[in-house]
Formats: sequence, structure tokens, C-alpha cells
Amino acid sequence: MKYKIVLNTLGSLLFFLGLSMLFPLLYAIYYQETVINAFLLSMAITSLSGLLLWKFFSSKEPIGHKEGFAIATLGWILAAGFGALPFLFAGTFPSFIDAYFESMSGFTTTGATVLVPIEGNPYAILFWRDFIQWLGGMGIIVLVVAILPALGAGGMQLFRSEVPGPEPDRLKPRIKETAKLLWAVYILFSVLQVACLYFTGMTLFDALTNMFGTMPTGGFTPRNLSVGTYDNPVFENIIILFMFIAGANFTLHYKALHGNPKSLFKDREFLFYCGVILFSILAITTELRFYIYNSIFTALRYASFQVVSIATTTGFVTADYDTWPAFSKSVLLILMFIGGCAGSTGGAIKNIRVLLLLKQAYREFRKLIHPQAITPIRLGDKVVSESVMRNITGFFFLYISIFVISSFIMTILGLDIVSAMASVAATLGNVGPGLGLVGPVQTYAFIPPLGKIVLTLCMLLGRLEIYTVLILVVPEFWRK
Amino acid sequence: MKYKIVLNTLGSLLFFLGLSMLFPLLYAIYYQETVINAFLLSMAITSLSGLLLWKFFSSKEPIGHKEGFAIATLGWILAAGFGALPFLFAGTFPSFIDAYFESMSGFTTTGATVLVPIEGNPYAILFWRDFIQWLGGMGIIVLVVAILPALGAGGMQLFRSEVPGPEPDRLKPRIKETAKLLWAVYILFSVLQVACLYFTGMTLFDALTNMFGTMPTGGFTPRNLSVGTYDNPVFENIIILFMFIAGANFTLHYKALHGNPKSLFKDREFLFYCGVILFSILAITTELRFYIYNSIFTALRYASFQVVSIATTTGFVTADYDTWPAFSKSVLLILMFIGGCAGSTGGAIKNIRVLLLLKQAYREFRKLIHPQAITPIRLGDKVVSESVMRNITGFFFLYISIFVISSFIMTILGLDIVSAMASVAATLGNVGPGLGLVGPVQTYAFIPPLGKIVLTLCMLLGRLEIYTVLILVVPEFWRK
Repeated sequence: MKYKIVLNTLGSLLFFLGLSMLFPLLYAIYYQETVINAFLLSMAITSLSGLLLWKFFSSKEPIGHKEGFAIATLGWILAAGFGALPFLFAGTFPSFIDAYFESMSGFTTTGATVLVPIEGNPYAILFWRDFIQWLGGMGIIVLVVAILPALGAGGMQLFRSEVPGPEPDRLKPRIKETAKLLWAVYILFSVLQVACLYFTGMTLFDALTNMFGTMPTGGFTPRNLSVGTYDNPVFENIIILFMFIAGANFTLHYKALHGNPKSLFKDREFLFYCGVILFSILAITTELRFYIYNSIFTALRYASFQVVSIATTTGFVTADYDTWPAFSKSVLLILMFIGGCAGSTGGAIKNIRVLLLLKQAYREFRKLIHPQAITPIRLGDKVVSESVMRNITGFFFLYISIFVISSFIMTILGLDIVSAMASVAATLGNVGPGLGLVGPVQTYAFIPPLGKIVLTLCMLLGRLEIYTVLILVVPEFWRK
Repeated sequence: MKYKIVLNTLGSLLFFLGLSMLFPLLYAIYYQETVINAFLLSMAITSLSGLLLWKFFSSKEPIGHKEGFAIATLGWILAAGFGALPFLFAGTFPSFIDAYFESMSGFTTTGATVLVPIEGNPYAILFWRDFIQWLGGMGIIVLVVAILPALGAGGMQLFRSEVPGPEPDRLKPRIKETAKLLWAVYILFSVLQVACLYFTGMTLFDALTNMFGTMPTGGFTPRNLSVGTYDNPVFENIIILFMFIAGANFTLHYKALHGNPKSLFKDREFLFYCGVILFSILAITTELRFYIYNSIFTALRYASFQVVSIATTTGFVTADYDTWPAFSKSVLLILMFIGGCAGSTGGAIKNIRVLLLLKQAYREFRKLIHPQAITPIRLGDKVVSESVMRNITGFFFLYISIFVISSFIMTILGLDIVSAMASVAATLGNVGPGLGLVGPVQTYAFIPPLGKIVLTLCMLLGRLEIYTVLILVVPEFWRK
């Protein structure tokens, strides 16, 4: 492990995080809010800590496998810590654990909240709380399109050829290029969404903060009742569109914007993603029409918003789906596990892994009939290597195991089984709201401190594709 | 597909099933019960159908891959059908679906019941209901030690070298030898258990029928309150011992009885099985001591019985564990998934698969650190082939998928999420009682007909290790 380059990179990360506190600070100054000092102090601490690390551990060494993992995991842990400072200094939360939970929820683009009530807090605090999601989204794009494919975690090497990506052990040179291209796409859609919301009548502050919740598939809003507050179908449809975009592969968006829109519909994962969403909307609309709403359009309106919101792991809410019938709830619960596409800002297992797992299961049948046949798994016209498949099945098993163990702990802490499972599914999948006690109109505030720590860890594990985090606790990792 | 030999084998199976109805018939005659005619009629229909098939399709062809699968699946489906005849003719259940559900629950050694109340039914009916579990157990032993290893379903080829087993496409000759050896072990333990229960004060009828529920890890008893009826710690400890034996690999028992008891404790799966059970007992005892019982011994008594009962997928009940705190309930829910050992009469995923999945997940970490290292997965001093590992990961994914889809259907039919999941976990894992509406003091009687059909299918899928059943719906399977 080359400690120097790790600390150096983390330093630059913190420095820029500190600088980004300028935006909420401007809000605080504009509205003459009392939290000006909280932001000034946080900004000073964060940028100075960053600058010290950056300059003290200057290094031009190449970033290798191990360094990549360490930077990603420690980066998120530190960002969440320093990002919680404004909440701490402003006294937004009763404890450090709450502030850290909210901050990690933002940076991992989860959107699970412990803030009650949301409205009434200073604008600067609400802006920062939403803005960190958008920063987290930028981090995810670098992680999933550049770092993970090169490191081969969880089958992500599958995309190595897709992206103009770097060679392992020589990460740095091309990460920047790739990241810049995809950040441009991310920023473009962000600007577009703010424009759409603003010009259809939303205030600029709400348009901005809702975009901060949409593009990284985060889910925080500045409103107590989430997107439901506006009760405005136009806003809802705009948000559905951009959630859907954010849950799809940004590499595909890049290609589509560069004159190849067909590539979207040639991509097997994208088609699968569309299929899952359409099927879920259809199924839930049907049930809601029978049991809850008199009008098919009302049923479709709420079903489509909640399906896209949960399937993309955003977590916005326009209806209290916890009161929906059990089938609709279990469809949503499954969507929390499937999640977005690889290369998107969406979380959870990802459509491509689910698709490949289905293909593998089918192959096992065929093998029973033709025991000698060697049939590689194909994705479109590409062959998926056995090593990638092992990686994916290992990931699936780990995901389920972490889900089971964490749900256990939540039940020990007194949650009922559905709430316990939903709280873990919603944080591990970076969704946000779950079911039952952590349902769409509830918060995570009541959960005991140990539970909050477990769920914070789930957010981190889910966001960094598990392996990236767990590898840091393998002793071998730290050996020379 | 060689239809002749399949029908020929199924015929002999039915013939012997018909003959076995002699035992309950003797009970009916002895107690002068009105169900004599029901049993006479069922016996005639079943043995004659069997005899006709057997003689009409006489064949000496070898049984190959495909025929093995077809015989196993169709065998269970037919046995459950003909086994339901006595219930039908005696009017035990209000519908054929109920009778078939109960019969399949017996033959798959599940123990999920739709019979309310149990006590008060004719002795012959109760005897038959329990006896079919024991017959199912004999079937399972042939299936798991002889047929599946040879056919390579779900990683079971792992045990091909373990058992003095047959070559693929030449199943018949050695199946008989292997099966006979292990049946002898099964019968020996059965006799021992009846003796233990009888000489400690249980009536012969109850000792017999409870053994029929124990050795095949079934779970039916002739009593409304299951084993809890007796409220007798001696009986409970005897039953715990034999449930534990039934949930372990019968090949190991055979070796142990032939002078090699150490082989038990050299077997990785057996050690894992012991570990899981001990850990669960410890965890649940601790929670029960704090929240339910004042005495540590009472807590230990109920915790150990329920843990061994659920972990071995037996499903006997001495305490209403649905009223236990959420953590204890979720431990039991997980045990429903892990289940017994391979080569036992226990159901569910099996300890060896869970152990190997854990090892694979760990290997993926090591690979992140040493990307070039080729590290085969080992089980003791044996190397597990990649083809077996693929089989196991495919099985795990299929198991979870079937669980999810079936739970969906149960929620559509109006069950709450916990009851829906528990009903599927308990039938797919061949456990019997679940949680909530299908909890330990409830039955499956209230479930709508479609739900009963789904759960019946789950029992069959779980019992035959999924692949064996699903392969029959692949069109390719039926082609020449």
C-alpha cells in the first residue's frame, strides 16, 4: 500500500469538498441566516485539512489496485464526516451519529433521512443536505465507470471494454478523461432538469434541490412530504423522466448524445431495465385500481412515480405506498434489490447482474440435458467470461448475506421483521424510504444509535459495490 | 426419452405404495373404524394401477439421465395423488386440493397441514398421514444418495465419489445396493427412536407416528398441539436427538456405524451444521431468557427444540415461536433457508451449499488482492470443481427467485408480507410451519385454492432440488 498517494488524493478530495461549501454559504449570506458561521467554520476546517494532507503527502506514484479501493472507501467515509460538520455546528441534529447518518445518506445518494421536520431549517442547511447527494453522484460516476471496471470488483470488469477506460495499475491518466466526458453528460442533464422544473413553475431553490435529489438518484427534498408536497403531475412527470435517465448507464447516454441513440435499445441491460419498470408499473397500477383508487389514471400516476422512484433507487415519495396492498409493496421491495443499471448513479444489485444470474440459472438446465455441452453466457453478441460470472454470483451471495445479517441486527434492536428487512434493503440498495416503521411517510430518526451505525455501513457497502469496502478488512490487503 | 422404462418404474412404485396401505388398513380393522372401505378401495385402485403400468410397459432398458429426472418428479406427483385417495374416500378434507396438499406435504416430508382438528380423526387416517412422510423419506434417500449425484443436479455430483454410487446412464444396477445400505441405517434409527419413546412412556401409536414425523424430517404428529401436547422434556430430548440425526448425512451415519465414527467430525458440512445449530440455540436462548422466560433452562428447552426442529426442516412445535421477539423469529426464518445436510432427509438449500457459497465469496476478495492467483475452492482436502460451483450458485439464485416469485403470488392472494414469505420459505424448504398466519399454532387451511397449489408446487420443487422438477418444463427435455 502506497500510503502517500492515498493520503494525497484524499487531501485533494477534501480540499474541493471544502470549497464546495461556498454554495450553501452564499445562500446563508443571501438570506442572512444564522448558520453563516457554521459554514465558514466547516469550510475552513475541511479545506485546510484537505490542503495539509494534499501538500504534506505529495506523491506522483501511480495509483494501483489497492490504492484505488482505499481511496474510494476512505474517501466516502471522510467526505461524510467532514460533510456533517455544517449540520453539527448549526445544531441541526441532536447527535453526531444523526448528523453522520444524514451526511452519509447524502453522499451515498441514499436519501434515508433522520431530519424531522425538514421544512423550517435554514435554506443553507437544506441546500447543503441536497447538494452532497449531487457531489456523491459525481463520485459514483468516477467509481463505476473508471475505477471499478479496472479493479474488477463484482463483475464490473465487464464494462472495461465499454468505456474508454484505464489499464489496471495505471488508473490515473485515463480516469480523468473518462470522468470528464461523463460528468459533462451528468451536468447537462442536471441543467436540463432544473430548467424544465423552473419553467413549469417550480421555484429556483426547489428546482435545484429536487434536481440534486434526482440526478444522483438520491431522494432528499427540501419538503416534509417529499415530491408529494407539490401535488403537481407536471413536476412528477419531469422528475420521472430524469429519474429514469439517472438510473440508466451514463456511457449509453454519452453515446446517444454523440449521434448513436440506437445504442440504447441495443443494450441488453437497458432493455431489461425498461422491461422491469414497465412490468412493475402495469402490475401495481392494476392492483391499485382495484383496491385503492377509483380512476385508472390516478392509479397509473402514483404507481409509475413510485415504481420509477424505487427502481432507480431514488426514493422520492408522492404516495404513502406503505398503505398499498401487500402485492404492490412486495413488488417495490424487490425493486429495491434490483436497482438501477451499471454505470448509472442508481444503487442495489443492478439490472445487468440480475440478467446474467437468470442466464446462468437457465444454462444450468441446459447442462442437465446436454452434460457435455460448453455453452458460454452471452450478452448480445458478447461472451461473458466465467471469471466475471463467478464475480457476479459471489456478489449476489454477499449482498444477500449482508442483507440477512443486518436485518438480524435490526430485529435485535426491536424492529418488526418487515421494517427491519425494509430498512436494510432501502439503505443497502441506496433507496431511502422503506416499508413499515421506515416507510415513505416515516423517517429513520427513531432508530437506536447502533441501528443507525449499521444502516450507515449498509449505505456505504451498497454504494461501493460491497467488495470495495470489505476488502479493507482483509488483513492481507494491508501487507506489502 | 424412453417412456416405457419410466412408466414401468412408476408402475412398480405405485404397486408398492398400494401394498403399504395394508398397515393403516390393519389399524382400521383393529379399531373397527368406518374407514375400512376407504382404505380397501384406495389400496385396490393404487396397486392395480401400479400393476397394470408395471406389466404393460415391461422394459429392461437402462435408466438414463432424462428418465431419472422424469421418474423422480412424476413419482412424487403420482404418489401424492394416489396417497390422497384414502383421505378423499374417508371424507377427511373438504376438497381434493386439500387432500392433495396434505398428501404432498407428507410425501415431500414437509409437514405443512390443512387438517383441523387433527385429534378425533380415525387412527387409520392419522397413521397413513404420518406414514407417507416415512415413505417419502425412503424416496429422498434414494434420490439424494443415488440418483441426484449421478445426474449432477444442483452440485450434488460433489458426492458422487462419497457414496458407492452408480455411473450416469447406468443408474439402476448400483442404486439398489446403495439404497439398501442406507435404508438399513434409516430403519435402524427408526426402530431405535420408537423404542426410546415407547420405553419412556409414550403409547406405541404415538411413538410410531412421531417417529414417522422425525426420521424423514417431516413434522406431522397425531396431535393438535404437535409435540407440545406431551409437555414432556424426556420425549422432547429424544426427538431432538433423532431430528438431529435425520438432518445429517446418512452416508456419514453408515460410515460411523461401520466403525468409523471419526468420519462425522472430519466432515466439513457436519461441523458447519453443528455450528449453525449451536449458534442459533445460544442466540435464541439468550433472547428468550431476557424477554419471555424467567429461567434459563426453560429458555434453553424451548429454544433448542425449535432450533433443531426448524434447522433440520422437521417442523415439530413445542412453543408458539410466532410470539417470540423478532430476532428469534428471524433466526428461525434463516434456518428455514439453510436446512439440513446433503444426503439427509432434511430439505432447503443445505449446509454444504451455504458453506461453499461462503467460500466462494471469500475467494472473490482474495482475487481482488491477487488478481492472477488461481485458487480452487477446497472442502477439507478435496478440491471442488468450478462446474460444481456454477451449479451451486445457479441453484442458490433459482431458490431465491422461486422464493420471491411465490411470495409475490401469496401476497396477491391477500397474505401479509411476513406470512407470505414464511409460507413459501416453510414449504420450499420442506419445513412445515412458518410465521404469522401460517405460524406454529396455525394451519394452511385458510389459504385460497390457488395458494395451496402454489405451495404444493413449492414443496415439490424444494424436495427435488428444483432442477429435477423444472427441467421437465424445458421443451428440449422431451425431444429425442
